[in-house]
Amino acid sequence: MAVDISTLVAALPAGRVVTDPDVLGAYRFDRANDPDAGTPLAVVRPTSTEQVQAAVRWCSQRAVPMVVRGAGTSLSGGSTAVDGAVTICTEQMTDITVDVATRTVVAQPGALNADVKAAAAQHGLWYPPDPSSFEICSIGGNIATNAGGLCCVKYGVTVEYVLGLQVVLADGRAVRLGGRQLKDSAGLPLTKLFVGSEGVLGIVTEVTLRLLPAQSTPATVVASFPSVVEATRAVLDITAQIRPAMLEFMDSVAINAVEDMLKMDLDRSAGAMLVAQSDAAGPAVAHEVAIIEAAFAEHGATECFSTTDPEEGEMFTAARRAAIPAVERLGPLLLEDVGVPLPQLPDLVAGVAEIATTNDVTISVIAHAGDGNTHPLIVHDPDDADETRRANKAFGQIMDLAIELGGTITGEHGVGRLKKGWLPDQVGPDVMEMTAMIKKALDPQGLLNPGVVL
Amino acid sequence: MAVDISTLVAALPAGRVVTDPDVLGAYRFDRANDPDAGTPLAVVRPTSTEQVQAAVRWCSQRAVPMVVRGAGTSLSGGSTAVDGAVTICTEQMTDITVDVATRTVVAQPGALNADVKAAAAQHGLWYPPDPSSFEICSIGGNIATNAGGLCCVKYGVTVEYVLGLQVVLADGRAVRLGGRQLKDSAGLPLTKLFVGSEGVLGIVTEVTLRLLPAQSTPATVVASFPSVVEATRAVLDITAQIRPAMLEFMDSVAINAVEDMLKMDLDRSAGAMLVAQSDAAGPAVAHEVAIIEAAFAEHGATECFSTTDPEEGEMFTAARRAAIPAVERLGPLLLEDVGVPLPQLPDLVAGVAEIATTNDVTISVIAHAGDGNTHPLIVHDPDDADETRRANKAFGQIMDLAIELGGTITGEHGVGRLKKGWLPDQVGPDVMEMTAMIKKALDPQGLLNPGVVL
Ligand SMILES: Cc1cc2nc3c(=O)[nH]c(=O)nc-3n(C[C@H](O)[C@H](O)[C@H](O)COP(=O)(O)OP(=O)(O)OC[C@H]3O[C@@H](n4cnc5c(N)ncnc54)[C@H](O)[C@@H]3O)c2cc1C
Ligand SMILES: Cc1cc2nc3c(=O)[nH]c(=O)nc-3n(C[C@H](O)[C@H](O)[C@H](O)COP(=O)(O)OP(=O)(O)OC[C@H]3O[C@@H](n4cnc5c(N)ncnc54)[C@H](O)[C@@H]3O)c2cc1C
Repeated sequence: MAVDISTLVAALPAGRVVTDPDVLGAYRFDRANDPDAGTPLAVVRPTSTEQVQAAVRWCSQRAVPMVVRGAGTSLSGGSTAVDGAVTICTEQMTDITVDVATRTVVAQPGALNADVKAAAAQHGLWYPPDPSSFEICSIGGNIATNAGGLCCVKYGVTVEYVLGLQVVLADGRAVRLGGRQLKDSAGLPLTKLFVGSEGVLGIVTEVTLRLLPAQSTPATVVASFPSVVEATRAVLDITAQIRPAMLEFMDSVAINAVEDMLKMDLDRSAGAMLVAQSDAAGPAVAHEVAIIEAAFAEHGATECFSTTDPEEGEMFTAARRAAIPAVERLGPLLLEDVGVPLPQLPDLVAGVAEIATTNDVTISVIAHAGDGNTHPLIVHDPDDADETRRANKAFGQIMDLAIELGGTITGEHGVGRLKKGWLPDQVGPDVMEMTAMIKKALDPQGLLNPGVVL
Repeated sequence: MAVDISTLVAALPAGRVVTDPDVLGAYRFDRANDPDAGTPLAVVRPTSTEQVQAAVRWCSQRAVPMVVRGAGTSLSGGSTAVDGAVTICTEQMTDITVDVATRTVVAQPGALNADVKAAAAQHGLWYPPDPSSFEICSIGGNIATNAGGLCCVKYGVTVEYVLGLQVVLADGRAVRLGGRQLKDSAGLPLTKLFVGSEGVLGIVTEVTLRLLPAQSTPATVVASFPSVVEATRAVLDITAQIRPAMLEFMDSVAINAVEDMLKMDLDRSAGAMLVAQSDAAGPAVAHEVAIIEAAFAEHGATECFSTTDPEEGEMFTAARRAAIPAVERLGPLLLEDVGVPLPQLPDLVAGVAEIATTNDVTISVIAHAGDGNTHPLIVHDPDDADETRRANKAFGQIMDLAIELGGTITGEHGVGRLKKGWLPDQVGPDVMEMTAMIKKALDPQGLLNPGVVL
């Protein structure tokens, strides 16, 4: 039975529901660029919780599946369109209100991470989580994936900043979880259950986030290393002594790709590069910088550069943030997000190199190294069937390796649609069953984000 | 139909199941001292996950309810015995293993918080969460309640340190959630769902906790204030500028009770006292101490004392930690744990004073003030029926007030059995229904901690 979209159009204010095929095309893919992406039945662009509720009720009453979409920067296919499903996109829900007295911000989910940061900064406050995509990803997407980033090695990931949520459930009811209070042990910790739930349990329509006082200007230390393994050993040496405010890694493929794009005089001959920051107060910063420099020297750094100039520091941070788009210029990517306990980081990086050789594919590794969270980027030509087969094989082998090393198939991007096949290997059948039971309890018809996680 | 306990005794190694009525008596009450406490059918004191599983399977197969108990310091009746239920007590599961390389600790749930801290300290590491009861409460109980404490105003509560859990589910299956990796977005965030779930979804049998480098020696600033409201205004003034490492509050009843017990020359005439700490590095500590002192002076502090001597600092911290047992000497307590967004703290404290007057009962207020989390302690004589009635009335009115101020009925102790009546008023019927659905999905027979939360 075909669904009659005109009733959906009628259920929402004018202009909120898109059915124009040309426009729908813009909502097919996310940044995972899954070639199997479907086309939305319609796209709803609500501006309020009530409009989200209206769309969800319409879908729920007709058993029409829904894809939840923020800014569409998912690297695991979480916001990829599904044929026959309505995409509910939060891009027009962008209000942000900072409350200085409680040091919190209330935002609609479509607000970009960068805009939340900027609004906080206007009041001398700071919202730390900083995915490399912070200028183009939404705060709702960050919450759905429990996004990480560069400063998270010291300041923690998204979940540590979420005090309250408003969520529209699969049947269209809206609930408020948590609030502005800093501590709350009342009832099951449902707020936390929704952070990282990838849109399969409900749609976040408002978030209340904790803010910190502004970060003090960090000092930046950058170094080149002959090999990836030496660089990862320097990482362990540093994290054993201090909590740096950033500890990022790029291999030679990434360094060269970034240099091609940004022309900033990076050392093209280096095997790896590390970008570290310390934001310790007063003279403690010099102490931390000295520890970082010593660790770099100890592990064979060929060039080492330190600066307390914020613009110079930002230049290197920006270089690291540019790594994914830069490597993408070499060809379409299969994007990994594997993480391991820190001592296993050198083994993971060495193992990935071996997988690249065995399968004869280019894999560039970049990493939030201080967290043990790496992004092996598998470059491949989709028109070359054999290379694509080898790339896919390597994709699976890297996740197998992470699991074998006691780690995770995804440190921050989420399972989405692309990593779902490996989730049972990581967590086991009992946890999969618990997951399914909770999904069923909250979304009995299985309408929210079909194919994601489960 | 009577259950045959001998089959439970047979299902576990010798000595693990207690049926001696004299010994059972010791497991009736927790620190909430509920006069309606039942008597356990039996107490199981397992030493391993497998033994917990054996006990849970036995119960589950016979539909016998279970009470989960750590060290029994619950202030909300969470580990109070229930007639006809088996109490599973983790007190003999006390192994602790620190892993310096990953900066984590793996502990059995019965390990005391203080012992986890001590084990970490042996390696120059630090487990921050520090409930006042840290020397007598278990880490499993801390996880079940998402315990807070004194340093949590800067370092966050228990959930921010939990990387992995092993949990025995209501049917006896054991699952592992999370692990040693610092970041993990694989699947639903089930690890977090169990932190603060008060034993109603499963029994935690092993925890993996993140550790920090040792804290630098804090400076302590203590001051007396003419009134509680002035002291709370000083709190807001400080938290608007810095994140102190501690910001604790006692009113005059608590000051006098502590002075009676510890004889340490506290100012008996003060209306309130604040204990603040800064552990900022290097000269930043002097800067923070100056901010704290200025805020104290600004809000009428009559005496103000600063010290960088760790023993002097610990003396004042210990005084604050002694407040509950000290006030308890005045008579049995009804213990509140209400929290509000910080700007509402003065209104909450003023409102509690009014409730005390209206109901003609003594209420002492102590607080983790920097979090907005207060503990009004309602003193009453259980043999005086009228006073008990008035105390119970005040107990409810204080929670109503916290809800009205946009806060929570429990910031850290959990809902347990005693605050359950107010939970629906705070979270609303839809959240209660979600809670019930998740409970039902994971514990369909409703055997785990009956009467807690739901
Ligand atoms: C160049 C680049 C660099 C990146 N770097 C990082 C990084 O450093 N760290 C990191 O963590 N990620 C990174 N990412 C991945 C991505 O930006 C994050 O996953 C981000 O959180 C997704 O936000 P979004 O708004 O684009 O979400 P979308 O792609 O729209 O959606 C992502 C997932 O969240 C769900 N979702 C979105 N909004 C909601 C909502 N309101 N309610 C419920 N569910 C919702 C979707 O259904 C989907 O499952 C990077 C991506 C790119 C392209
Ligand atoms: C003087 C005093 C001061 C206190 N100060 C603080 C404070 O500052 N901050 C604070 O947060 N609390 C404080 N408390 C309360 C109490 O100590 C905490 O709630 C503590 O976390 C309880 O630990 P426990 O081992 O005693 O747990 P119990 O009392 O044995 O149990 C508490 C709850 O946890 C559940 N539970 C216990 N172990 C497990 C397990 N392994 N798996 C699943 N569920 C389990 C129980 O079923 C129960 O619901 C204080 C208590 C006292 C007496």
